[in-house]
Amino acid sequence: MSSIFGNMVKVSVFGESHGAAIGVMIDGLPAGEPVDLEAIHAFMERRAPGRNRQSTARREADQPEILSGLLNDRTCGAPLCAIIRNGDTRSQDYAAMANIPRPGHADYTAELKFHGWQNRAGGGHFSGRLTAPLTFAGAVCAQLLARRGVTVGAHLQAVGPVEDCRFDPVKVTAEQLQTVSAKAFPVIDEACAQPMCEVIEAARQAGDSVGGIIEGVAVGFPGGIGEPMFDGVENVLAKALFGIPSVKGVEFGAGFEAARMRGSQNNDPFTVGEDGRIVTVTNHHGGALGGISSGMPIVFRVAIKPTPSIAQMQQSVDLAKMEPAELHIQGRHDPCIAVRAVPVVEAVAACALLDMLLSDVP
Amino acid sequence: MSSIFGNMVKVSVFGESHGAAIGVMIDGLPAGEPVDLEAIHAFMERRAPGRNRQSTARREADQPEILSGLLNDRTCGAPLCAIIRNGDTRSQDYAAMANIPRPGHADYTAELKFHGWQNRAGGGHFSGRLTAPLTFAGAVCAQLLARRGVTVGAHLQAVGPVEDCRFDPVKVTAEQLQTVSAKAFPVIDEACAQPMCEVIEAARQAGDSVGGIIEGVAVGFPGGIGEPMFDGVENVLAKALFGIPSVKGVEFGAGFEAARMRGSQNNDPFTVGEDGRIVTVTNHHGGALGGISSGMPIVFRVAIKPTPSIAQMQQSVDLAKMEPAELHIQGRHDPCIAVRAVPVVEAVAACALLDMLLSDVP
Amino acid sequence: MSSIFGNMVKVSVFGESHGAAIGVMIDGLPAGEPVDLEAIHAFMERRAPGRNRQSTARREADQPEILSGLLNDRTCGAPLCAIIRNGDTRSQDYAAMANIPRPGHADYTAELKFHGWQNRAGGGHFSGRLTAPLTFAGAVCAQLLARRGVTVGAHLQAVGPVEDCRFDPVKVTAEQLQTVSAKAFPVIDEACAQPMCEVIEAARQAGDSVGGIIEGVAVGFPGGIGEPMFDGVENVLAKALFGIPSVKGVEFGAGFEAARMRGSQNNDPFTVGEDGRIVTVTNHHGGALGGISSGMPIVFRVAIKPTPSIAQMQQSVDLAKMEPAELHIQGRHDPCIAVRAVPVVEAVAACALLDMLLSDVP
Amino acid sequence: MSSIFGNMVKVSVFGESHGAAIGVMIDGLPAGEPVDLEAIHAFMERRAPGRNRQSTARREADQPEILSGLLNDRTCGAPLCAIIRNGDTRSQDYAAMANIPRPGHADYTAELKFHGWQNRAGGGHFSGRLTAPLTFAGAVCAQLLARRGVTVGAHLQAVGPVEDCRFDPVKVTAEQLQTVSAKAFPVIDEACAQPMCEVIEAARQAGDSVGGIIEGVAVGFPGGIGEPMFDGVENVLAKALFGIPSVKGVEFGAGFEAARMRGSQNNDPFTVGEDGRIVTVTNHHGGALGGISSGMPIVFRVAIKPTPSIAQMQQSVDLAKMEPAELHIQGRHDPCIAVRAVPVVEAVAACALLDMLLSDVP
Repeated sequence: MSSIFGNMVKVSVFGESHGAAIGVMIDGLPAGEPVDLEAIHAFMERRAPGRNRQSTARREADQPEILSGLLNDRTCGAPLCAIIRNGDTRSQDYAAMANIPRPGHADYTAELKFHGWQNRAGGGHFSGRLTAPLTFAGAVCAQLLARRGVTVGAHLQAVGPVEDCRFDPVKVTAEQLQTVSAKAFPVIDEACAQPMCEVIEAARQAGDSVGGIIEGVAVGFPGGIGEPMFDGVENVLAKALFGIPSVKGVEFGAGFEAARMRGSQNNDPFTVGEDGRIVTVTNHHGGALGGISSGMPIVFRVAIKPTPSIAQMQQSVDLAKMEPAELHIQGRHDPCIAVRAVPVVEAVAACALLDMLLSDVP
Repeated sequence: MSSIFGNMVKVSVFGESHGAAIGVMIDGLPAGEPVDLEAIHAFMERRAPGRNRQSTARREADQPEILSGLLNDRTCGAPLCAIIRNGDTRSQDYAAMANIPRPGHADYTAELKFHGWQNRAGGGHFSGRLTAPLTFAGAVCAQLLARRGVTVGAHLQAVGPVEDCRFDPVKVTAEQLQTVSAKAFPVIDEACAQPMCEVIEAARQAGDSVGGIIEGVAVGFPGGIGEPMFDGVENVLAKALFGIPSVKGVEFGAGFEAARMRGSQNNDPFTVGEDGRIVTVTNHHGGALGGISSGMPIVFRVAIKPTPSIAQMQQSVDLAKMEPAELHIQGRHDPCIAVRAVPVVEAVAACALLDMLLSDVP
Repeated sequence: MSSIFGNMVKVSVFGESHGAAIGVMIDGLPAGEPVDLEAIHAFMERRAPGRNRQSTARREADQPEILSGLLNDRTCGAPLCAIIRNGDTRSQDYAAMANIPRPGHADYTAELKFHGWQNRAGGGHFSGRLTAPLTFAGAVCAQLLARRGVTVGAHLQAVGPVEDCRFDPVKVTAEQLQTVSAKAFPVIDEACAQPMCEVIEAARQAGDSVGGIIEGVAVGFPGGIGEPMFDGVENVLAKALFGIPSVKGVEFGAGFEAARMRGSQNNDPFTVGEDGRIVTVTNHHGGALGGISSGMPIVFRVAIKPTPSIAQMQQSVDLAKMEPAELHIQGRHDPCIAVRAVPVVEAVAACALLDMLLSDVP
Repeated sequence: MSSIFGNMVKVSVFGESHGAAIGVMIDGLPAGEPVDLEAIHAFMERRAPGRNRQSTARREADQPEILSGLLNDRTCGAPLCAIIRNGDTRSQDYAAMANIPRPGHADYTAELKFHGWQNRAGGGHFSGRLTAPLTFAGAVCAQLLARRGVTVGAHLQAVGPVEDCRFDPVKVTAEQLQTVSAKAFPVIDEACAQPMCEVIEAARQAGDSVGGIIEGVAVGFPGGIGEPMFDGVENVLAKALFGIPSVKGVEFGAGFEAARMRGSQNNDPFTVGEDGRIVTVTNHHGGALGGISSGMPIVFRVAIKPTPSIAQMQQSVDLAKMEPAELHIQGRHDPCIAVRAVPVVEAVAACALLDMLLSDVP
């Protein structure tokens, strides 16, 4: 349990923010699959801090070292393990507040669970830094998916009150997904990039942070994949996506809007597509019905809460004294983690979709 | 995989709408737990069709028969299996449209997955009727939770555009949850019952249906439960809740609203409560941080799409001829399944929470 | 956990000996597979008591009722659930000794685990009767295996000191397996049937019982199946076979004899077979190397202890008084359960092998 | 799947013999447990090659590096990952025979499964070297078990035809287990050490190898642990033990001998022990009845086949040419891996027993 997920392809994440290394083991990859490490580095670079003004200032090398599972840049059938050494850490930033849990962080709940034995520095195993090995795993899985005709992409659908348009849930293409993913600021409508950045910058200047919504899409995912009732497309994706720190909601297709619709609006009529295959005219279902993929694009949205680390003074409790305490978090923090979370959402979705695809009994 | 979920307490659902019986097996219940069958029947009655004007007209006996796992009304440590015989079925309602998948249903995706071998009548294994054994399982788990101080409740937070108020995420009590659950129409603010019923009745008269939102809450759930990163409170609940047919979104605490908030608004300050325990002043986190319970009420919302079976003519495809076909669904259908889904949401949450509670290593 | 095993094909057993019913759920069977119920009944009849003089006198109907998962005698993709009603039970046989655990039975360990809440009558969930639904499941899986070219068979390799010859581990054929399985007394060399029966009869007349060894074989199982290190052929089969009550040992190929051999004897040379495929000249490895099937027959042996229920007086303890007590077990008991366990071993192996076969990612 | 096992405590092994590193991740250890790294090194040293004349000549550093999961020598609740760098490897020893599978090894079955993409050098993921991280994991788990009153030990019960005496299955103590484990040549009766070594030396001089039997025991394991039917003590231990390369059989208590016994001999009478607890007078059951521990010592034996790598010429097949080929394995090989496998058996049993202990719901 815990930091492991998957059925046929199991992804296990380990490490703490200020430990020796963080890493990931991927068990169950088919043998002989080419793995393009350059492309993986490029994918991971999208998540790396310091990529643009909107991100944190902590420098990370984030160069994964492959310990096992690859031979001549192909999977060899054995578990693939990659690690990233932890370098530039400032544990002293955290020492002063060891007894004062940060609001919105897992500091206090980790204390409840681990009774004080957890590695507090930098959030330990709960750090957003753990999304680096997760992104590595997703980058590997995305290459296997691509070879099977499946492309996963995502964009920043909202930052605070500013909204990007959405992917057309019927007509979206792999090319469109790749174009958006390649942008430094991953939005569809570039006109919204500027106002989004302003919202982020305003939050930063106020010593504050802001949340966002990420929309993910997979195209080319074949119909008929997924298991009723608890291992359907939505169950598996949701379980995995809630593993990304700061995710507070997951919806598919029309999602929460469906609750406000009538059946005659929400039902997607079937028709025969140009290529003779059955398609739906609209895609409010988001690519899965009864947990099983329909062959239409899989569409989901993920709510990311505002970065809990903010420069403003906050009310907390000194656990040693069991009395109220003011908290001033030192260090520089990312005012909108939703930006860097875009490739993480793609990565986690890629892991989950590959697992489902390979779990399908022919 | 598939129709099974849980780690220490495994719930396995079986049956098709028009087969001999539907049922559930619960494996891993501690021995010696009293099971009040009267209370279970009362709980299941809340889900049963025909309970009020808003529901379907199909009569079901829905009296579960216990085949194993109980001895003198206590769990005996062996798997508990209960079945419900299928009685009043009208397969002829479905025969005419065997080749025409219903929009919004799993008919077409089941066809893709099972290549025509699935039991089509009444939706087969995908029927909402399968929520009856699931509700049975949840009613059992709720009794074990109650004995451990945990109460789960839910209400209709929205029907179409009409919204109920929300539970106070900090002050909500077990008594309040029980009071709302006991209502024939489970809303907090009774003033919204009438407009909600009108929305439902209008949909029915239009041969249409309408969606809704259900808010679920658990109080008394201890802090420190849940595993990072993929078996946290949100992961486990979401995986289970997406197993309920028609669920299209799941959010915790502030959920999608958190994406629009600033960190200074969304972060919940810690303080020392009246009983000397640490609490949060607000509860935007919804009872879990980093996947681990905080001891605050667990708060989540579930989006239910409008009933896909509607009386209006719909566009579909004749799979045998591979050409467009109009579909007229016969029979009487529930214009708003969200109403009857309230106890199902409670039930599934109870199963998932009991599983997490018992999975915790002391 | 517990009464559930399997990865892609999950088999869940439920019921107690003197409860309402016993049964099994099989989740993950591919859809559209014909299921020959007549053949299943014939398979189950081999396990049924009263089949010959060597067996118990309790009459069981043992006619399984299919509750779900079949449509027109084909799997429909949904979980297959079958139950067997408990009829002819004599709970009074057990009432007298409720507090006196039977040596060699799970009475005492069940007491430790379930704290007195277990269903004691007839051994409850630990009864050998639970092998009836397990045999049902295996009979279903065997039909799917047969359609994929795999045949599973077994014979009584030893009863007490009397040994049957073994299957030729290289040349054994599906026909030979079927011939032996069809016998009323399943041995290869019919000359050993008479001495075996005499050993059993002598034990019966002494109010005693005797153990035995069952050799199981699968032919046609393709090479390349199984996962290193913990989900290999031996791991999966052993885990499943130890689920049969009274199994005390499991070995593959040369098994414990390999410990006494030299490498030059035990190593199986490779050669090119008549059909151009690679085979081994001998088969001490038993069909798996490194956990992965080699394409050679899978050969294993299972040690079955003597029936613990014997007519002789035995020393035990009165749990209520915590003092020594003599135990006289009433009722008629099978003096050699190994005889009836032969089809159970085949059944469990069939479930495990089908699961492995369907878990293989192409 | 595959190189992962465990329920609450999951052990995942990765690496190939001649890759960058091998390692293990342990997920689910309780937080705050002291881990004595010196003791772990001492435990691992027992498995290390070059420890005595009976072992292989390959030098390994085998010093594990802890990457995560420990803080100030205590578990911190996050997954514990340790790696061992691969140093002294002679891939050229393997290059010459890349296309000629070694009899008794996984070379050919790996070829079938991974279609030539596997890392062949040194056996890759199937190398006995992978038992080093497994031993690390077991050494950690043994420390947690010791703190809970459970001691695991093992000895060489047989080497070829030479047998050591057995542990007294009723009276064996933790001290006796520790004394035997501490010996350079782990036997109970030291008089058998010399003949065993002679058998091994004779095999070596003949360019051959020899098998052995290892008997393992756990004392102090509480009664009432284990789940019926497929997660009992025997199922879980057997599944884990068959993960050790070269294991061909596993038996519990009287094991295969039970098949030759009568019930009146094999049944273990219950009595009230000196401390007022219920014990069995004999221990043919090996510490588990119905899959559930009885509180008596858990006793099992594991058959280890002779080292498949021998210096003698062997018959194999050239996979490239698909014609017979003679094989001369170069390099120095351990003539009896059973000797070094003793701590590996202890280690794997410790992992499995800790997992079961922590999986028990109070």
